[in-house]
Amino acid sequence: MSPPGRTSESGLPAEAAPDRAWLAELAWSPGFGLRANVLLEATGDRFSRVTPDAEQIPAGAVRLPGLTLPGLANAHSHAFHRALRGITQASRGTFWTWRERMYEVAQRIDPDGYLELARAVYAEMALAGVTCVGEFHYLHHGQGGVPYADPNEMGRTLMRAAAEAGLRITLLDTCYLAGGLGQDGAQLPLAGPQLRFGDGDSARWAARVEELAVGESGTLGPGAKAGAAIHSVRAVPPAQMGEVVGWSHRHGVPLHAHLSEQVAENTACLAAYGATPAAVLNEAGALGPRTSLVHATHLTRPDIRLLGESRSHACFCPTTEADLADGIGPASRLAAAGAALTLGSDSHAVIDLLEEARRVELDERLASRERGHFTAAELATAATSAGHASLGWPDAGQLTPGALADLVVVRLDSVRTAGLAPASVLESVIFGATAADIRDVIIGGREIVRDGQHQLLADVPAALQSVITAVLD
Amino acid sequence: MSPPGRTSESGLPAEAAPDRAWLAELAWSPGFGLRANVLLEATGDRFSRVTPDAEQIPAGAVRLPGLTLPGLANAHSHAFHRALRGITQASRGTFWTWRERMYEVAQRIDPDGYLELARAVYAEMALAGVTCVGEFHYLHHGQGGVPYADPNEMGRTLMRAAAEAGLRITLLDTCYLAGGLGQDGAQLPLAGPQLRFGDGDSARWAARVEELAVGESGTLGPGAKAGAAIHSVRAVPPAQMGEVVGWSHRHGVPLHAHLSEQVAENTACLAAYGATPAAVLNEAGALGPRTSLVHATHLTRPDIRLLGESRSHACFCPTTEADLADGIGPASRLAAAGAALTLGSDSHAVIDLLEEARRVELDERLASRERGHFTAAELATAATSAGHASLGWPDAGQLTPGALADLVVVRLDSVRTAGLAPASVLESVIFGATAADIRDVIIGGREIVRDGQHQLLADVPAALQSVITAVLD
Repeated sequence: MSPPGRTSESGLPAEAAPDRAWLAELAWSPGFGLRANVLLEATGDRFSRVTPDAEQIPAGAVRLPGLTLPGLANAHSHAFHRALRGITQASRGTFWTWRERMYEVAQRIDPDGYLELARAVYAEMALAGVTCVGEFHYLHHGQGGVPYADPNEMGRTLMRAAAEAGLRITLLDTCYLAGGLGQDGAQLPLAGPQLRFGDGDSARWAARVEELAVGESGTLGPGAKAGAAIHSVRAVPPAQMGEVVGWSHRHGVPLHAHLSEQVAENTACLAAYGATPAAVLNEAGALGPRTSLVHATHLTRPDIRLLGESRSHACFCPTTEADLADGIGPASRLAAAGAALTLGSDSHAVIDLLEEARRVELDERLASRERGHFTAAELATAATSAGHASLGWPDAGQLTPGALADLVVVRLDSVRTAGLAPASVLESVIFGATAADIRDVIIGGREIVRDGQHQLLADVPAALQSVITAVLD
Repeated sequence: MSPPGRTSESGLPAEAAPDRAWLAELAWSPGFGLRANVLLEATGDRFSRVTPDAEQIPAGAVRLPGLTLPGLANAHSHAFHRALRGITQASRGTFWTWRERMYEVAQRIDPDGYLELARAVYAEMALAGVTCVGEFHYLHHGQGGVPYADPNEMGRTLMRAAAEAGLRITLLDTCYLAGGLGQDGAQLPLAGPQLRFGDGDSARWAARVEELAVGESGTLGPGAKAGAAIHSVRAVPPAQMGEVVGWSHRHGVPLHAHLSEQVAENTACLAAYGATPAAVLNEAGALGPRTSLVHATHLTRPDIRLLGESRSHACFCPTTEADLADGIGPASRLAAAGAALTLGSDSHAVIDLLEEARRVELDERLASRERGHFTAAELATAATSAGHASLGWPDAGQLTPGALADLVVVRLDSVRTAGLAPASVLESVIFGATAADIRDVIIGGREIVRDGQHQLLADVPAALQSVITAVLD
């Protein structure tokens, strides 16, 4: 599944990462802000020294013009949704009609196709500066819900896809048991393509994921860590949640859940349980600093307090939330309450973490008619250190000694980023740059993207076209 | 001001446009939708023949892989605002505090700097597929409002900038007389940087623009046409609007006005005149098929009916409207009422007409929680034929014989656009592509952008950096 060789505890293969040094013309990190002439030195796959305003430059240091950022974390991904980009724009409807199209694609995917598709999608992410992906993975079983010979074949496929695309993954293995909440509050059985998502009950979910052999700090292998997910209150009955929560606690790994993406979820949840989805998750012990609530769009004031006081992460996916007509979530109120913001490209209508970051602020401007809810540094923190922490990599997403040696270099000489003022370089990048301006990406000391070209896969667009054509055919 | 040589009535110099033919692998136009193997033949600067499913291909035809669109019209631009990209993101505040920063930049610009800045900004537009810009121009006079020796020097500078960047311009010369509406409904005098905008009264405005020597169909020179603008109800008293409306009628040219971008404008207008801004403009005879109302964000039901029944254009600028916290306008209700939608990049926080197009739909999804208000074809029509028509170029923005020979080729082999289904190519481009995916741009038969490189200006980002640094210094 993974390339051979000596590996560090939690990074990518160390043999591919000799000692190296880079000199960043400009660099920003949550720890030190924006600085010039930052010397970054790595031993193996980790930074050994980080020196802003460096004066003594080692001869072999690679110069990085532009703005160097820590690695970007894509905290919420459903890799196979990438096949839907474009085609679902041809029809009207709602989130729920979109979901029908998504299920059609889910139905068609087998492990071989999944490897090809996820590898190409993860490569697209790497080109966009993503150094770690949180894959919210629920496509577990074969047609009709029949397990594969290895019941974790699909999960292992995703880890292999990430390794081959050169980025890290947190496999958020998702418990998905019910097909929704009916009018009367009863759980609907899984049906059709949903059968592939289900393990029967949470004990069997836990038994399956236990076979992944989770190591220390959640490690599953080089560049891969484990996490748990409760799909949503729609898909997991409250009585089944405790097992998932307990498993995540036992291994000390992240726990993710979709939360209140649609008003209909709240309505059905209130009818069934007399409580909001956030309250139901809280009751199950599911909130806390290792937890991420994805979307968190339609929240009550007490919901916001629950997320804030528990120091949970709120994972916003603004391009998907616009695409699926979810609405604008209370990002700044969540942040003020104490929740840490993270970002995901979710359905991959767009893969551009800079766009996700600025849309958090811009959507809130649209809703509030005021500017300046988040600083560029706060948005960049969501995209880097907070995102990595939410995926179980607290030692990534920062340019600091001991952290994984990840670098993302953004061009400052494109038509989009040119014309900046020195003091507002980070603002120019967060609000003006796009994924097309990512020039170089280094992950665990290894050069994965150079000058906009993926170094492990020859032609990422061709790979996307080929596998998506096959999936849709 | 313009290169020498034989010119057609309304296009760019014809000598630069020999007879040519292109074979578009795929092309979309408002007239025929999405077709394959479209042979496009031009004589001089206009299409002579357009043949979908072409079988006989002339030997010299240039093959265009990707999706070929008609030229994109940027119907609302303030070129100098480009200098603000990034720097205004560092502060909190509102539209009104942003405006203070914008005035500071306005204060610093002289004709030489304006030429450099506008040329670079228009080149950035050309690289994004814009073939015609509507420049809403109010920076008329020197410091303190003292006219230049040629009182139209700034307007002529903008026309020269467009010609040197290779695209067409409609100079929307803007009447700007007052500094706003006070609490008591009285007009505030122009003050500070605003003095540069004012002509004193509308008669003097008309006398000045008359010196531009407007020719047939509004022509001002090769690739340039005239239009009029009423800045807004804030800046032009109702009694002064008739002169501007009359001038635009006399010459048969477009009339543009900002409308209800901010709630405060509506409040002040109601207090001053007992009517909404749309009603005030209607009373002045300013609505109609040659009129564009820019933003049209905060409208009443009767306002929407006025714009629709008059067949006015509603020009949406979604990236600016998000940046400036304006809010989400009623795009689909305006369209349903009969108003034609157009698009502008306005403050140039972003220059990407594809992003403007999709955000009209996506913002409405956020507001309504439903998908599919506009089809990709409707959004593409706003960006092409409707936009051009609103700028006085009804003979552009369509791939049809007799139209100006403008082509914009979008790559289908980038990571963003790869993986499309043949039936939804336009959807993939409108919802998934960015300005970075524009490969070739042909304007009036002349190649302005080839493989993402501007053919008239060597280094557009360097030009932007140099002039903006000088302006901000």
